[in-house]
Amino acid sequence: MKFAVYLPPQAKSGPVPVLYFLSGLTCTEENFMVKAGAQQFAARYGLMLVAPDTSPRKTGIPGEDDDWDFGTGAGFYVDATQAPWSQHYRMYSYVTEELPALIAEQFPAQADRQGICGHSMGGHGALICGLKNPGKYRSVSAFAPIGAPSRCPWGEKAFSHYLSEREAWKTYDASELVHHTQLDFPILIDQGMADPFLANQLMPEVFEQACEQAGQSLILNRRQGYDHSYYFIATFIESHLHYHADRLQS
Amino acid sequence: MKFAVYLPPQAKSGPVPVLYFLSGLTCTEENFMVKAGAQQFAARYGLMLVAPDTSPRKTGIPGEDDDWDFGTGAGFYVDATQAPWSQHYRMYSYVTEELPALIAEQFPAQADRQGICGHSMGGHGALICGLKNPGKYRSVSAFAPIGAPSRCPWGEKAFSHYLSEREAWKTYDASELVHHTQLDFPILIDQGMADPFLANQLMPEVFEQACEQAGQSLILNRRQGYDHSYYFIATFIESHLHYHADRLQS
Repeated sequence: MKFAVYLPPQAKSGPVPVLYFLSGLTCTEENFMVKAGAQQFAARYGLMLVAPDTSPRKTGIPGEDDDWDFGTGAGFYVDATQAPWSQHYRMYSYVTEELPALIAEQFPAQADRQGICGHSMGGHGALICGLKNPGKYRSVSAFAPIGAPSRCPWGEKAFSHYLSEREAWKTYDASELVHHTQLDFPILIDQGMADPFLANQLMPEVFEQACEQAGQSLILNRRQGYDHSYYFIATFIESHLHYHADRLQS
Repeated sequence: MKFAVYLPPQAKSGPVPVLYFLSGLTCTEENFMVKAGAQQFAARYGLMLVAPDTSPRKTGIPGEDDDWDFGTGAGFYVDATQAPWSQHYRMYSYVTEELPALIAEQFPAQADRQGICGHSMGGHGALICGLKNPGKYRSVSAFAPIGAPSRCPWGEKAFSHYLSEREAWKTYDASELVHHTQLDFPILIDQGMADPFLANQLMPEVFEQACEQAGQSLILNRRQGYDHSYYFIATFIESHLHYHADRLQS
C-alpha cells in the first residue's frame, strides 16, 4: 500500500499532529497532495498530512479493474466480508489501525492528536472513521461526502459486493452511525451546490437531518456554484485545515 | 490549440490584467491550473491567468510523438523554420500574438497590462517573449528556466530540428537576447538548488552573468532543497503573483 506524507517545518523540532486525508473514487495517494494546495496551510499550522491510496491494487482478484467505481480505486473504506474481496479489501482497518501505527513508528507524529478529512467516497470514509471511533480523532471534516451510502448508487454497488449482509451496510453508513454514536465536537462539511453528484449520490441533507435528530453538531457549508472537483477543495482547504489545527493543537 | 483561463472575481466588474503562464516539457494547458495553486492569489490580486498548451498536437508530422523532449509537448516557444515542423510549430507567434488577440477579444482583459511567467522550457519561453518584445509585457518571471538553450541538451535537440540556421538559435536564447535588449524592470527567477536539471540543462548562472554584463536587472532566488516539480512552484507562486500584480496593477 502506497501513501503520501507531507511533513511541516515544525516536524524538525518535534512530533506534530497528523491529519489524514481520504480521497475519492479513482484517486491514488497523489491526487490530494498534487491538487489541493494544502501544504502551505499545513506548514503554517504545523500539521503532518497523510494521504493513503483508495484501495488495494493488483490483488489478482478477477474483475478488480473492470469498473471505475468499484474495486481498484474504490475501496470505500470498509472491511470487505464477502469473497473474493474480503481477502484484500480491508481499507477500514488499514486507515484506522495499520497506517496510523506505521506513521507513529516511522514519522514524528503525535499519535494522540489525529484528525481526518476526505472527499466524496473519502468524505464518507472520514465520517465513518470518526463516528465509529469516538476519541480516536479530534477533528472530522469532509468535502462533498457520500452522506448516506446505503441509499445511493455508488454505495449500493460497493456495499453489495464488499459486504455479505445487508445489516452490515448500516455499520459503514454515516447517516446510520450517527444515531448510535455522536462526537463531542462539530463535524465540518463543505458541499458545492453545482456538484453534479449532489442529489443522486451525495445527499448531504440526509446526513444533516440524521445529525439533527441525533444531536450531533454539524457545520454544513453549502457553496453556491462549486462543483465536485479539486478546484472546489483547493478553494476551501484553508478553512478545513484551520478547523483541524484549532482542535489538534489545543 | 487548447488553453486554460482563470478569471478572478474582479473580472465581473471590468477588464483585468492578464498573466500568461508557459509550462514545461510534457505539460498541457492543465498542469499549471491543477498543480500550482495560483488561483487563490490571482483572486486576491485580480489577475486573469492564461495557460496555453506547450505545442501543437496531432499535426500528422511523422515522429511528432516519439520523444518526450521534442515535438508534441515540447514546442519550445519558437517559430520553427525547418520542415516539416515549420508548418505547425509556431509557438512563439501563438503565445505572443495569436493567443493575446483571442484573449482580448473573448475575455475581459486589459490588453495593455500583460505579464508572462513560465517553468523550465516555459521559463525559457517567458524570458524570450519578454526580451524580444520590450513594452509588450510589464512583468517577466520564471521558475527554473532553461537559461541558455543553445548550450544545453534539451535546447540543442529542439533548436537543431526546429530552426534551419544555427544563427537563429541566438534569437531564441535569453542569455544571447539580453545582450541586445534589456527590460526596464527586474526579471524575477526562482531556482531550486536540488533541481536535478540545474547544472546540465538550466544553467541559471549563465543567464545571471549575461544579465550582469548587459545591465539587465535580475532577481535570482536560489532556493535550497527545492527540486524541479510543481511542489516547488506551489511554494513560491505567491511571491511571483505578488511581483506581477505590483507591476500590472500600477
